[in-house]
Amino acid sequence: MQAVDLIRRKRDGGALDRADIESFIAGVTDGSLPDYQAAALLMAIVLRGMTPQETAWLTDAMIRSGIRVQYPDVDAVPVDKHSTGGVGDKTSLILAPLAVACGAVVPMMSGRGLGHTGGTLDKLESIPGFRTNLSIDELRAAIRTIGCALLGQTAEIAPADRRLYALRDVTGTVESIPLISASIMSKKIAEGIGALVLDVKTGAGAFMKTLDDSRALARSLVALGESSGVRTEAIITSMDAPLGVHVGNAVEVIESIEVLKGRGPDDTRELSVLLAARMLVAAGVEPDETAAERCVRQAIRSGAGLEVLGRIIENQGGDPRVLDDYRLLPAAPLEDVVRAPRGGYVALHAERIGRAAVALGAGRAALDDRIDHGVGIELLVPHGAQVRQGDAVLRVRHAGGPRVGAATGLLEQAIGISDGPPEVRPLVLERIVNG
Amino acid sequence: MQAVDLIRRKRDGGALDRADIESFIAGVTDGSLPDYQAAALLMAIVLRGMTPQETAWLTDAMIRSGIRVQYPDVDAVPVDKHSTGGVGDKTSLILAPLAVACGAVVPMMSGRGLGHTGGTLDKLESIPGFRTNLSIDELRAAIRTIGCALLGQTAEIAPADRRLYALRDVTGTVESIPLISASIMSKKIAEGIGALVLDVKTGAGAFMKTLDDSRALARSLVALGESSGVRTEAIITSMDAPLGVHVGNAVEVIESIEVLKGRGPDDTRELSVLLAARMLVAAGVEPDETAAERCVRQAIRSGAGLEVLGRIIENQGGDPRVLDDYRLLPAAPLEDVVRAPRGGYVALHAERIGRAAVALGAGRAALDDRIDHGVGIELLVPHGAQVRQGDAVLRVRHAGGPRVGAATGLLEQAIGISDGPPEVRPLVLERIVNG
Repeated sequence: MQAVDLIRRKRDGGALDRADIESFIAGVTDGSLPDYQAAALLMAIVLRGMTPQETAWLTDAMIRSGIRVQYPDVDAVPVDKHSTGGVGDKTSLILAPLAVACGAVVPMMSGRGLGHTGGTLDKLESIPGFRTNLSIDELRAAIRTIGCALLGQTAEIAPADRRLYALRDVTGTVESIPLISASIMSKKIAEGIGALVLDVKTGAGAFMKTLDDSRALARSLVALGESSGVRTEAIITSMDAPLGVHVGNAVEVIESIEVLKGRGPDDTRELSVLLAARMLVAAGVEPDETAAERCVRQAIRSGAGLEVLGRIIENQGGDPRVLDDYRLLPAAPLEDVVRAPRGGYVALHAERIGRAAVALGAGRAALDDRIDHGVGIELLVPHGAQVRQGDAVLRVRHAGGPRVGAATGLLEQAIGISDGPPEVRPLVLERIVNG
Repeated sequence: MQAVDLIRRKRDGGALDRADIESFIAGVTDGSLPDYQAAALLMAIVLRGMTPQETAWLTDAMIRSGIRVQYPDVDAVPVDKHSTGGVGDKTSLILAPLAVACGAVVPMMSGRGLGHTGGTLDKLESIPGFRTNLSIDELRAAIRTIGCALLGQTAEIAPADRRLYALRDVTGTVESIPLISASIMSKKIAEGIGALVLDVKTGAGAFMKTLDDSRALARSLVALGESSGVRTEAIITSMDAPLGVHVGNAVEVIESIEVLKGRGPDDTRELSVLLAARMLVAAGVEPDETAAERCVRQAIRSGAGLEVLGRIIENQGGDPRVLDDYRLLPAAPLEDVVRAPRGGYVALHAERIGRAAVALGAGRAALDDRIDHGVGIELLVPHGAQVRQGDAVLRVRHAGGPRVGAATGLLEQAIGISDGPPEVRPLVLERIVNG
């Protein structure tokens, strides 16, 4: 089967067989398939779709383009959480230490900010000295000694995904549930987990704007995990407004530490507790959600979670004193507030706030942009609250310069004011398990 | 507008504006648009389509990627014919001299064989010495002195089309009426014509298998011609069985000369006469089809058409004595016949006969294959005729070797035998004019 025949088959709405998909991924991995043929096939996949069986074969081929990590000296079932990306979503920094404090092992490979959403690696790197580029050997050692590592994807993990992802980004072929699913799950499964909890975001601040799309993605992800022998479940959560009250990097680290100290915003805490509890159940550490939640809340109260975070930071070269002294974290020197243009009820638009954070320097517009870890946006009133004209709604922490104008313009558009209260959806909307 | 935004717009079913299309074609022409982005956009166009307006802008941008030839010292309206490709279709060699004999000027840029179809350039090059690679200056000189040149596309003509076509061929993005239309019409319009007659083939031996698709292509082509100020009409003709009785290169040249001598098969002659007559009407040389046909038939009877072909051959370095001595043309040394496997009515499958001709060496399977101009297939009984078991149906002229077996296998499949007479459609099915 020549590449062009395979492209034509998908173009005409046909299904690819396992050998087709394996030759496609082999060609991507070793570079023998020209980018233009891969791009044409990707666009055909975006527009024609893939069956669950094709998606499973694609995922499997992508996993086998690299190594699947094993932890031979670990008894527990390695468990991870993956979020499809949101604004202000810092739950990884909270739930990983909490799950570890309750007995889980968590090999967590995360990403950087993408589009308007933040990335766990960028947040962690605001901690002075913190290294996210661990090797597979360092990952294994951290799992053995601490039970957790928070790291970036290594070159050995799903290399086909890395090449395909770069190509999808520049060819308008990102938006495809089969391609998104295979990309997420190949990386997660390759990191060697036996259980996975997915936080599939939905709404204005998520990549999937509608509940239907989010549900389809969640189902696809869960099916892929289960077909690879990974116990997988998904929780669909609303991402209309940012999660918590801080959006940025260092400011999100601080909010995370606050939650581990038993403080911090309710929504950040409750979502972190739920996801950590589901991880414990999925990994078989706790028998049910009630028992798991009890353990997680106890790990907050006792400070055990905070202590684990300190060990993770220390193990990865960071300065654990940040837990007690936030002045060790970068902070931009200037502050402005954005005020309510009139009285009424506030609706906060997560995507615009995320884009404003990127404009300030909290994320990247281009691949080689440098991150300013000290900038951030603080929500001074919650989504749905009543305000009077001129009330401060958002606080912007910035370093001055031309970026501030662009960010402020976006933030003014991010504050919607209505005469009646906006619909505020519950944080947790649905749970998706296999079948 | 970045390339990826343009790709995403088309992917989502939107229309591109003129500036988008011009930047796409500019990037293709100067190589600044990476092939992978062009490939993704092409696939999105194949699957999402293009409006007539987008197709017109695309055609225009492709024309302006090179030069549009002018003939300042020629009074007549330059006119051409284009066929969408068939098997045994040698009308160009007949109608160009006939139209010139009746007063038209015909700057005819043709192609090589594509897939299972033959190419005018390959046929002409079976004439010893005949050069098809004329320069634009040589084209202009030939038009001035003889009124006709039969040549290949030069580098100055629609260079964007050449790059795009090569990419479409390897990315499964050939089959798209807007892309096919823009490719055909940009080249034809750039050669400097003021009138064009299109022979849109339909059926088993054509690229468009259904009348609906052929009609859609014809309408698209006619609209594009008219919107560029070229008087354009299309005739939809059936291509179920080969045209005429010879398929190959030298054998098709001989059949063409025979028609110009007042002999040859009826279908080849009648289609050539009709197309030549329509060219004369479209170019304003004759007032109506009746007068034009009279002139064309007279040019056959008088030998004026044959004389013009002799001048064209001589002008392009070929040996005009071939007109009288077919032994000067290459002829493969061996002959076989393929017989009717049982009694009944014969249905000849044009595409399979075309593929058999390519297998014999009359066309190319790969770009750098050498053509054997002396091989060919002769139809010994017409499509739809009654035969007895063992009657000779096809004669194969070949050079021996392993190719013969493959070709013979295809030819056996090309002979369908039915108990009742097969449907034989008229040659001319429809005429399409603008609006």
